[in-house]
Amino acid sequence: MEQLARGVLSGERRTIARAISKVEDRRPGYQALLSALYRHTGRARCIGITGASGTGKSTLVTQLARAYRERGDHVAIIGVDPSSPYSGGALLGDRIRMRALAGDSGVFIRSMATRDAVGGLAQATSGVIQILDAAGYRVILIETAGAGQDEVEIARTAHTAVVVEAPGLGDDIQAIKVGLIEIADVLVVNKADREGADQAVHVLQDMLALSEAPWKPPVCKTIALDGTGVDDLVAAIASHQAYLQAGPGERQERVRVRRELERLIQDELHVQFLDSLPSGQLDDVVTRVAARDLAPYEALAELGL
Amino acid sequence: MEQLARGVLSGERRTIARAISKVEDRRPGYQALLSALYRHTGRARCIGITGASGTGKSTLVTQLARAYRERGDHVAIIGVDPSSPYSGGALLGDRIRMRALAGDSGVFIRSMATRDAVGGLAQATSGVIQILDAAGYRVILIETAGAGQDEVEIARTAHTAVVVEAPGLGDDIQAIKVGLIEIADVLVVNKADREGADQAVHVLQDMLALSEAPWKPPVCKTIALDGTGVDDLVAAIASHQAYLQAGPGERQERVRVRRELERLIQDELHVQFLDSLPSGQLDDVVTRVAARDLAPYEALAELGL
Repeated sequence: MEQLARGVLSGERRTIARAISKVEDRRPGYQALLSALYRHTGRARCIGITGASGTGKSTLVTQLARAYRERGDHVAIIGVDPSSPYSGGALLGDRIRMRALAGDSGVFIRSMATRDAVGGLAQATSGVIQILDAAGYRVILIETAGAGQDEVEIARTAHTAVVVEAPGLGDDIQAIKVGLIEIADVLVVNKADREGADQAVHVLQDMLALSEAPWKPPVCKTIALDGTGVDDLVAAIASHQAYLQAGPGERQERVRVRRELERLIQDELHVQFLDSLPSGQLDDVVTRVAARDLAPYEALAELGL
Repeated sequence: MEQLARGVLSGERRTIARAISKVEDRRPGYQALLSALYRHTGRARCIGITGASGTGKSTLVTQLARAYRERGDHVAIIGVDPSSPYSGGALLGDRIRMRALAGDSGVFIRSMATRDAVGGLAQATSGVIQILDAAGYRVILIETAGAGQDEVEIARTAHTAVVVEAPGLGDDIQAIKVGLIEIADVLVVNKADREGADQAVHVLQDMLALSEAPWKPPVCKTIALDGTGVDDLVAAIASHQAYLQAGPGERQERVRVRRELERLIQDELHVQFLDSLPSGQLDDVVTRVAARDLAPYEALAELGL
């Protein structure tokens, strides 16, 4: 384990990959590994990129990675979207762009292996971020699909949440949009060469005008396919990070840590409690509740809660 | 409290509404109320109706409610979709249809007040279902938007999960679709008069052909606006319910009860644990974890876990 931690800290790519698998699968010693690395974390900027499929966010992530590389940063990409190019569901153009990036030793790309991660996707992603942070990646891009609660939770874990829209996707995803915009630190209208792009920008600006939050999310226009607007997006992200560093970042970090601890606490309490029950007691209680002989809250009392 | 439970059991509409609010808000005594009612539950058939917005599922829910009323059942509708007509986001036509239903004393309509329900939407919805079941509503229709994890969890809580599609919504919601189809007991292609309806049916049938589950979800075509196909949908739901009653329903009920108990256990353990901590200890631990002086798993050990 010592050796594994040392390998991660010195940035050995194969060791990093092994460490990530260990944490994802919760193999023995993963907690000690994360504890050993934790003191070396906290230097990476985590940027969540989320949006419905069809918005071109994977292409945008690739362009962002390239832009940060040009600035000299080591960049890690975590794909948490089953349809993202990192997990095989890619269009040909995406795959070609990804391959160009993947040949760069300053870029580490990883897709989260499964939506059924033991203990939840958010918890697994948090561990993977810690490994990449300790390994020296200063920019960590986390791409999520934005549809589920897990994905929103992950996007919220990032220091800066970028929400990607595109013109002409229709109203079907309106409900999703509203939920996502609430968590956005930076908004992007991608595919800005399409009809309706300016209108999409205005709609977003109108929605944002209602907010009384201290940070006003900038709205950027990009054409990820040819890189138009990507530098402006990088600048918008930097301005949010400057805002955080001037004070609010400390509070954000406490909120993030508290949420992660509460997740771990809940998980651990549950496991310990189930282990402590005499064999068969939960089954017996389930049978009686299913038969309406016992109400659920009465069952809690009977289980000693 | 006794009085509240008696009022619910005798089907007094205003008392039912008060009981629901009490459970939603977790006001003192809500657990005792649910425990008193629990023995009188288990007679309702719960039907979850889920799908993206734009599929016309609210109109379909209204038509289903009417169809069950014609068969003599008392029907309750629970709207868990912020864009559903029960919570104000309705189109005029929907509102007119809903008003016709709402005047019928055999129909009870309730929208879940908030997405930030204390203890989670799934738990609150479960309590509301128990109240309506105890109050004598034999058919409970639960409409969810299907985008988030909570909504999928709620749809899964129903005896029969109906997933609604419509032709021509585009591929943007493909990822959502796939997740929903996994939980479907009955599939509906609504707006079946639109171009592409038969193709949508075939795509769904092809997807279902891959499944090796013992129950093969039927695929129904409906035009909710004029009621076409609604009787076939009612028949498809009935055939799933006959399948459940022949055996698998018992196992389903045990799974449902176990999931609900585990949710309550987790919740209760967490609350009790936080109450048991000396004042300020969690804050102190959060501070040290945020400062990288303590790793999250070390923090658990320090908190006695």
